[in-house]
Amino acid sequence: MAVAQRLERLRQQLAEKGLNAILLTQPENCRYISGFTGSSGPAATLLVSQDSAVLATDFIHFEQAKQEAPDFDVIAVNTSSQRLTQLLSGNGKLAKVGFEANVLSVAEFRRLSEEADKARAELAPTEDIVDCLRAVKDEDEISCILRAAFIADAAIAFIASEIHSGMTEKEVAWEIEKYIRENGSEPIPFDIIVASGPNAALPHAKPTDRPISNGEPIILDVGARWKGYCSDLSRTLCLGPGGERFRAIYDVVLQAQLSALDGIAPGMTGAQADGISREVIDQAGYKDAFGHGLGHGVGLAVHERPRVSTASADVIRENMVFTVEPAIYITGWGGVRIEDTVLVRNGRAQPLTKATKKANPVEAS
Amino acid sequence: MAVAQRLERLRQQLAEKGLNAILLTQPENCRYISGFTGSSGPAATLLVSQDSAVLATDFIHFEQAKQEAPDFDVIAVNTSSQRLTQLLSGNGKLAKVGFEANVLSVAEFRRLSEEADKARAELAPTEDIVDCLRAVKDEDEISCILRAAFIADAAIAFIASEIHSGMTEKEVAWEIEKYIRENGSEPIPFDIIVASGPNAALPHAKPTDRPISNGEPIILDVGARWKGYCSDLSRTLCLGPGGERFRAIYDVVLQAQLSALDGIAPGMTGAQADGISREVIDQAGYKDAFGHGLGHGVGLAVHERPRVSTASADVIRENMVFTVEPAIYITGWGGVRIEDTVLVRNGRAQPLTKATKKANPVEAS
Repeated sequence: MAVAQRLERLRQQLAEKGLNAILLTQPENCRYISGFTGSSGPAATLLVSQDSAVLATDFIHFEQAKQEAPDFDVIAVNTSSQRLTQLLSGNGKLAKVGFEANVLSVAEFRRLSEEADKARAELAPTEDIVDCLRAVKDEDEISCILRAAFIADAAIAFIASEIHSGMTEKEVAWEIEKYIRENGSEPIPFDIIVASGPNAALPHAKPTDRPISNGEPIILDVGARWKGYCSDLSRTLCLGPGGERFRAIYDVVLQAQLSALDGIAPGMTGAQADGISREVIDQAGYKDAFGHGLGHGVGLAVHERPRVSTASADVIRENMVFTVEPAIYITGWGGVRIEDTVLVRNGRAQPLTKATKKANPVEAS
Repeated sequence: MAVAQRLERLRQQLAEKGLNAILLTQPENCRYISGFTGSSGPAATLLVSQDSAVLATDFIHFEQAKQEAPDFDVIAVNTSSQRLTQLLSGNGKLAKVGFEANVLSVAEFRRLSEEADKARAELAPTEDIVDCLRAVKDEDEISCILRAAFIADAAIAFIASEIHSGMTEKEVAWEIEKYIRENGSEPIPFDIIVASGPNAALPHAKPTDRPISNGEPIILDVGARWKGYCSDLSRTLCLGPGGERFRAIYDVVLQAQLSALDGIAPGMTGAQADGISREVIDQAGYKDAFGHGLGHGVGLAVHERPRVSTASADVIRENMVFTVEPAIYITGWGGVRIEDTVLVRNGRAQPLTKATKKANPVEAS
């Protein structure tokens, strides 16, 4: 989708919500709406109304912004706090201006309010207007996520051929990261997780110096980035034959994941999708062992809308991309998580990640 | 410094500012005050008063927080938005509670205000109370930054022996990153900059597929991380002999940097420190070519207090750590930046980074 179409959809939202304009400060939202990729950190602020679109950035990014955001009038200002106020003071006609209430800080809001008073504009809090637009992907975005998924898949296949007892979690994580970076990925979207044995009971474990051993669960959670777009993929390996408990838990999680992949359909809420896996896990007797939501949207950010969790009213729609990642965590023993990034297309959840779900690829290979 | 001493200094600040308590949500501030390292992303919220210190986190981080933050009462809550409100509702005695106005979002503030009303507490905006404490480092912090500086130095020496004409900026950046990661650094604190030829005119250039050539300026800006603490180091190389213009500009920047290293002293403002380098550059005829501040504090964050720039009233104090990075940028030609991370100790700015400032180490070696 061209930026022009995104702008059009944003303007429809403004009309529906009775806003004359909206100020955008969230970095991925600014990139999505303008095309301006910035650099590390927030680099732009946007003001979009029905008949104007202005991008404020610093002098350093001025030329880049003009090239990347031809649909916007680009202005350069000295400091990021000036961006907001300058945009607003230049637009005295705007009666009601939305801002991102879950992004703008109280201090920024106070400075902005002074300018709004001068310009006789009313500031209206909004939440997730652009985030919700971003949840439904266009063809170019899907291609980028697929490419990022392809790299993550290859990294899992690579590490399955390299991993061996005695390597530390940190060593495994670094081998994976090197592979991902050397196979086309931009800087990775999140720190790679390698969690072995009891560490696998922690959903967000950091890799440690613990050497991995045969027969224990090893959760790998990896992602790549292509042209700004992320993938997110988890597999749980076991070197050599896993014990009975491992195989039993693995089978439950796999069944929970396959059931969700099979059952998710447009029109469901995130909570309903989450319920598909959760029911399988509950019925197998692991009711309190799946302590997070089933998934989250993936795109320019690795965590974005839609929410796919117990309390989510987000409705699953065609061309959404999100993770499906049921898990079972047992304190002291470890855990199993199986995660794909999926695309909702033709009424079904289609995995973009394809890495094998064999739990012991080392033994199998 | 033990966390107990940091808490004590924070409590002195509360007394001075007439606050009964302060809510902290900024991740590095929470880590600094509590010792809790969290994982990726904000993982904790703190409420500190004269006689209590409470850390709220999620169930996933509960055990880790109890281990790492023994001076705090650790409570587990379901969602991050609940952390704030739960902390406040449990403390009805607190009349005036500070919050970080440049961190807390408008939406979070609104939810918090409802709880404050119920608890009859007044929310008072604060800015940078903990950030200013963090600006002065203790011995353990200095050791960590020195270790991160040592790794960055070694990476510059390594790449000087490997770099050659025809390598792309991206290839050079990746060789540097690999070296840093394989020599003890945690995930690097910022994307490495390799900017060659005309690209070196952009202070925050992203590495491109441009092959580097002999005789042109190549800015390398690298950092490492050790136990959470960052280093930040820039050198400008030239393969083979640089032309006359390169040597002239390099000499001005080097003189500007050495003058600042020599002249910076406790009691100066950041603006005065900045002025030392700026005057050298201005007098050499490059008045508008140094388009950013002289430096910034370095610690748990790679950009923190003190500010060392034209408008900064921050006062340089003993045991502060910050960068000294004058530069000259010429659109279309390129640029030169020379940056050290320095420690103010015994009344002087002492570089923690030691990489050679020879502009053409390849020729020299």
